[in-house]
Amino acid sequence: MSTVDVAVAYHSGYGHTAKVAEALARGVTLGGKKAVLIDVSAITEAQWLELDAAKAIVFGAPTYMGGASAQFKQFADASSKRWFTQAWKDKFAGGFTCSLSMSGDKYSTLMYFVTLAMQHSMVWIGTGMLPSAIPGAADQMNRIGSSIGVMAQADNVPAEQSPPKGDLDTAQAYGERIARRID
Amino acid sequence: MSTVDVAVAYHSGYGHTAKVAEALARGVTLGGKKAVLIDVSAITEAQWLELDAAKAIVFGAPTYMGGASAQFKQFADASSKRWFTQAWKDKFAGGFTCSLSMSGDKYSTLMYFVTLAMQHSMVWIGTGMLPSAIPGAADQMNRIGSSIGVMAQADNVPAEQSPPKGDLDTAQAYGERIARRID
Amino acid sequence: MSTVDVAVAYHSGYGHTAKVAEALARGVTLGGKKAVLIDVSAITEAQWLELDAAKAIVFGAPTYMGGASAQFKQFADASSKRWFTQAWKDKFAGGFTCSLSMSGDKYSTLMYFVTLAMQHSMVWIGTGMLPSAIPGAADQMNRIGSSIGVMAQADNVPAEQSPPKGDLDTAQAYGERIARRID
Amino acid sequence: MSTVDVAVAYHSGYGHTAKVAEALARGVTLGGKKAVLIDVSAITEAQWLELDAAKAIVFGAPTYMGGASAQFKQFADASSKRWFTQAWKDKFAGGFTCSLSMSGDKYSTLMYFVTLAMQHSMVWIGTGMLPSAIPGAADQMNRIGSSIGVMAQADNVPAEQSPPKGDLDTAQAYGERIARRID
Repeated sequence: MSTVDVAVAYHSGYGHTAKVAEALARGVTLGGKKAVLIDVSAITEAQWLELDAAKAIVFGAPTYMGGASAQFKQFADASSKRWFTQAWKDKFAGGFTCSLSMSGDKYSTLMYFVTLAMQHSMVWIGTGMLPSAIPGAADQMNRIGSSIGVMAQADNVPAEQSPPKGDLDTAQAYGERIARRID
Repeated sequence: MSTVDVAVAYHSGYGHTAKVAEALARGVTLGGKKAVLIDVSAITEAQWLELDAAKAIVFGAPTYMGGASAQFKQFADASSKRWFTQAWKDKFAGGFTCSLSMSGDKYSTLMYFVTLAMQHSMVWIGTGMLPSAIPGAADQMNRIGSSIGVMAQADNVPAEQSPPKGDLDTAQAYGERIARRID
Repeated sequence: MSTVDVAVAYHSGYGHTAKVAEALARGVTLGGKKAVLIDVSAITEAQWLELDAAKAIVFGAPTYMGGASAQFKQFADASSKRWFTQAWKDKFAGGFTCSLSMSGDKYSTLMYFVTLAMQHSMVWIGTGMLPSAIPGAADQMNRIGSSIGVMAQADNVPAEQSPPKGDLDTAQAYGERIARRID
Repeated sequence: MSTVDVAVAYHSGYGHTAKVAEALARGVTLGGKKAVLIDVSAITEAQWLELDAAKAIVFGAPTYMGGASAQFKQFADASSKRWFTQAWKDKFAGGFTCSLSMSGDKYSTLMYFVTLAMQHSMVWIGTGMLPSAIPGAADQMNRIGSSIGVMAQADNVPAEQSPPKGDLDTAQAYGERIARRID
């Protein structure tokens, strides 16, 4: 297993959250670090070991019915094995979520990620970004105005078309921020 | 003191949240009930008695630095006198908030209002509205996609110009919903 | 299908949360209403119809890794079918959770239940109880000090022995409160 | 102004939260770093500069009516001046709270601190501690079971007598953890 700096542990229902995960991973690369994408709904034992080896783990999931998807929660519950031994202690953590509406209780999902990270004794890094001066505009960074992690909004169209550039740029910048922090 | 059905207990820093409060009060009237607006940053003893007499209390405040404004919190802390005797037990409760960005941690403020209401043993009514099909569009009801209470977004312009029609319509519909529920 | 007043929709990993569910159902009966217990990890189509028919739905789950168990979340996600048509609109809602420690992020689980209920346009009833004057004492009602819903604490022993009397009494009183409210 | 490593920015109503602040500061010293205690309800311009100079800021407040005290929130709102320029960006942050009951919505206060810290683009460190094996026992570390920050419980007696040893030890260990992290 080669060295992993940032593991992006995500679930995506229809591909929109996966786009955010990929943008974040690109940012990690831009920041000079190695990223790995792990789909937690089909996680392998080798991938659990990649998580164990990473310096940072970024959690990602769609917000379904006001919280992280059940597929992500299944992964979170399975991480209790790592929690018992505090195997992820002192790693950095971050998070992102995606849903159809602007707010749509995305804060609830991000706060869940923080709570999960804190149980693992990880250290949380937010987006480090001020809100966009043009709220909601599709090409603006942090157009939704979140600081805990990335909030992306996707329309009910194929993932190639949405979430918009602004949200993906936000995720990329966040990935770069995390990469630079783990120096 | 005449009978009050719904008391809107709000603080507004620059007038934008006050516009939401007024729209909500109009909705209460449309629902056939009597509303009273109470600016909690200058609350009088007579107004505390109006709160005590109301069938529903709707909490409102701008989201400042990720939570309800300190002026609102001062009122919430002062309400501990009512909490000791559970004077507001079984009243209905609701809430709304306003800030510059789309999300901007508005969920945090609304969840605080729920927490406050629960300590008072009140019963919480949300907006009862699906998110807008056109996320963010200024003329759409529930364009931000909130169900716990109303999330309004105001630009840094005079309160006459913002928050937009969609947010005020949302508040009005919420006021009407609360009014009809307390029959 | 006979009439159901209160449906207790819960998941229990090792039986401790089930004890809380049963105590709550007893309270509903004491309040003169009919309760039904539904294990959401094995929910049938007939039970979905019972939820649709109920006047109140009380959500219950253990707090695992800082949130409701994945089994519960799977049920919550599946309830999106009801959300689309707002089939549960205006029903009453409540919630309870159980975990090994006193706080253990139980608030996170209860707030998730509130968020879920609000997306369904339900109306939330909390415990309506002041905190115990003797914090933590095993035989005291509301010994943990929660108002949003019931927080129970169970030791790592069989469910017959834990959670203690105080927590079960709290759940029972909460069930009775909900029953009386839906008159 | 001498160098400050960790600034403890707290408000205390009756002295109990101040005891937690002092224990945390002792831990910072044990960790080989310099701590300063700042009562935010009477903060001076010189103290704002100490916050600006610190490598970590730990927020502390009693939980009143389900959230951080209004006195703390006033400080948080005043910190918006630092937020505009992101003056605290990349500093470490942590938090603690104290109230009469075991849970008493303390999670709400801690999550507010996280939200505030994220708006300031700070990096959050939790307690890094597993819950006590004897939940609630007065002499146990992390007896309440919190990982985001310290939850302390104080009885309605003078601050010399409560919160108990376990809570103060928890705060001290947390201070030491923060001190070692900022190396």
